[in-house]
Amino acid sequence: MQGQTKTTLMSGMRPTGELHLGNYLGALENWVQLQNEYYCYFSIVDWHALTTAYKETDKLEERIFDMACDWLAAGLDPDKCAIFRQSHIKEIAELHLLFSMVIPLSWLERVPTYKDQLQQLKEKEINTYGFLGYPLLQAADILICQAEVIPVGEDQVPHIELTREVGRRFNHLYNTEVFNDPIAKLTENKVLPGLDNRKMSKSYNNYIRLTASPDEVIQKVRSMVTDPNRVRKNDPGNPDVCSAYAYHKIFNASNAVETEQSCKQGSIGCMDCKKALAIQLTELIQPIYEKKQELKNNPDYVYDVLADGAEKTRIVANETMEKVRKIMGI
Amino acid sequence: MQGQTKTTLMSGMRPTGELHLGNYLGALENWVQLQNEYYCYFSIVDWHALTTAYKETDKLEERIFDMACDWLAAGLDPDKCAIFRQSHIKEIAELHLLFSMVIPLSWLERVPTYKDQLQQLKEKEINTYGFLGYPLLQAADILICQAEVIPVGEDQVPHIELTREVGRRFNHLYNTEVFNDPIAKLTENKVLPGLDNRKMSKSYNNYIRLTASPDEVIQKVRSMVTDPNRVRKNDPGNPDVCSAYAYHKIFNASNAVETEQSCKQGSIGCMDCKKALAIQLTELIQPIYEKKQELKNNPDYVYDVLADGAEKTRIVANETMEKVRKIMGI
Repeated sequence: MQGQTKTTLMSGMRPTGELHLGNYLGALENWVQLQNEYYCYFSIVDWHALTTAYKETDKLEERIFDMACDWLAAGLDPDKCAIFRQSHIKEIAELHLLFSMVIPLSWLERVPTYKDQLQQLKEKEINTYGFLGYPLLQAADILICQAEVIPVGEDQVPHIELTREVGRRFNHLYNTEVFNDPIAKLTENKVLPGLDNRKMSKSYNNYIRLTASPDEVIQKVRSMVTDPNRVRKNDPGNPDVCSAYAYHKIFNASNAVETEQSCKQGSIGCMDCKKALAIQLTELIQPIYEKKQELKNNPDYVYDVLADGAEKTRIVANETMEKVRKIMGI
Repeated sequence: MQGQTKTTLMSGMRPTGELHLGNYLGALENWVQLQNEYYCYFSIVDWHALTTAYKETDKLEERIFDMACDWLAAGLDPDKCAIFRQSHIKEIAELHLLFSMVIPLSWLERVPTYKDQLQQLKEKEINTYGFLGYPLLQAADILICQAEVIPVGEDQVPHIELTREVGRRFNHLYNTEVFNDPIAKLTENKVLPGLDNRKMSKSYNNYIRLTASPDEVIQKVRSMVTDPNRVRKNDPGNPDVCSAYAYHKIFNASNAVETEQSCKQGSIGCMDCKKALAIQLTELIQPIYEKKQELKNNPDYVYDVLADGAEKTRIVANETMEKVRKIMGI
């Protein structure tokens, strides 16, 4: 942003629907902190959503709206950051096209996640030209914003490395310094299991929505899988195989040691233990839930935030593209 | 175009510099006729130029201007058609990106020209993501204009076939009829050899510029390679090995039979035969040359034509993209 003195940070999420606690811990909780230190661009990357779900676009609009609400409800502040929808910035498509002309095919074929994902998502027929190119679209997302810091999980590090290489190759080819070298900032890895102790996943329906109602929180906590060998209330339990305890460790951290001991001693029953957890979770979630209700009743405000974020992003995107076009003689 | 009743036609050329007589015969001569029958979009495809020449962009701006001048000098009429620069229509990059999400990689890998060109242009390091994707960019060029007819040479037919398949796949996936099936209209194949009887090529410098001065035409015709066995003026010649005769057949067609006989009988010397050819060529080229001088002295007019053409094209491009975005929920 012009006139800003803060370091620029950029990140994005695919609009896959309402966020759950795992998404919150994995990124959003961190973003809410980062917006105070950095100038942040946060993108709802709807074009990226098409790389793996081009056939299921009927819910996309709704999911984008939901994601914007969830971000705002969780505490992203549009006065501190630009919250926008990727497809509102057409310049990203242009930069992606220009990058495509100078980036060897082999760089994309060698991205570690590429072949893995092709295999994993076989039934979705994602072996498309765009799926191969999505790390290049990501490079365009980042470099068009002149972002210096990218908060990511470990698995995304190779993509940031590719982004750096794309920028460097461009700079080298055209003897310029238009693109800086963004660095990956690793997000602390807080892994939350699903309510049934399996991996948390939308398709298993074993998660708690970030904007769940208080009743829903209670009901979800009740359904958590505890130590199956603990039959009676006074039996000693094994917290290591209990999903409620995994949540206690994160959301009720100051009481985690006590909770662990009480469980092992059989001095607290699962029901009471879950009640204590539900209280902690509700404390976190209820304000987010209420804020989301407010936002859902005021969609114009949410769309204004996205329009405003796009406007802010377009300033830096245009600035970058004017330089890029001039450099390439286009 | 809105309100038009003519069939829509679209074509483009890469801005590789000033046009020569081979380019004129291969496409432009035809376009000048077609603009009377069709509503035409003619695109200077500067993004495409990057697929094979991303390292040599310093002359691109000049080449684009030259190409626009050559088109206008040869008779394209901006009142009858939209003459524009591809990169002015950002929506094409957007459509290309959206197509990339739904088109199997294998469709592009299997384009017949792909592996051939990789081999032929080895030293240019064109094994890029964008080079693989350029038939898809071409599909976006065509389909965004809702073009119904595409004048092409034989070698381009597979690309038009791909364009049709891209449109059909999109229509099928989203249960829509947004894209029509454009048809390829084969351009009559008038092959002109180089002045030295080799293939005409910029790198051999064996061509006549479409906008050559009268002096340049005379000098170029003089340099044409004739029958090497014809030593004296009265020796019988073999027109089949004479490049001047190849040009007579095309540019002095009504006298070609007479010219052939006179050569075979040795009743006309090469010098006189070339003079006659130079007169015919000058008759074609001089008005184009003069018009180009005029245009070069009035660059603002040329840039206005391109801006105006872009504006006309943007109307249909926006119309298409609004539908496409809605269909994809983007």
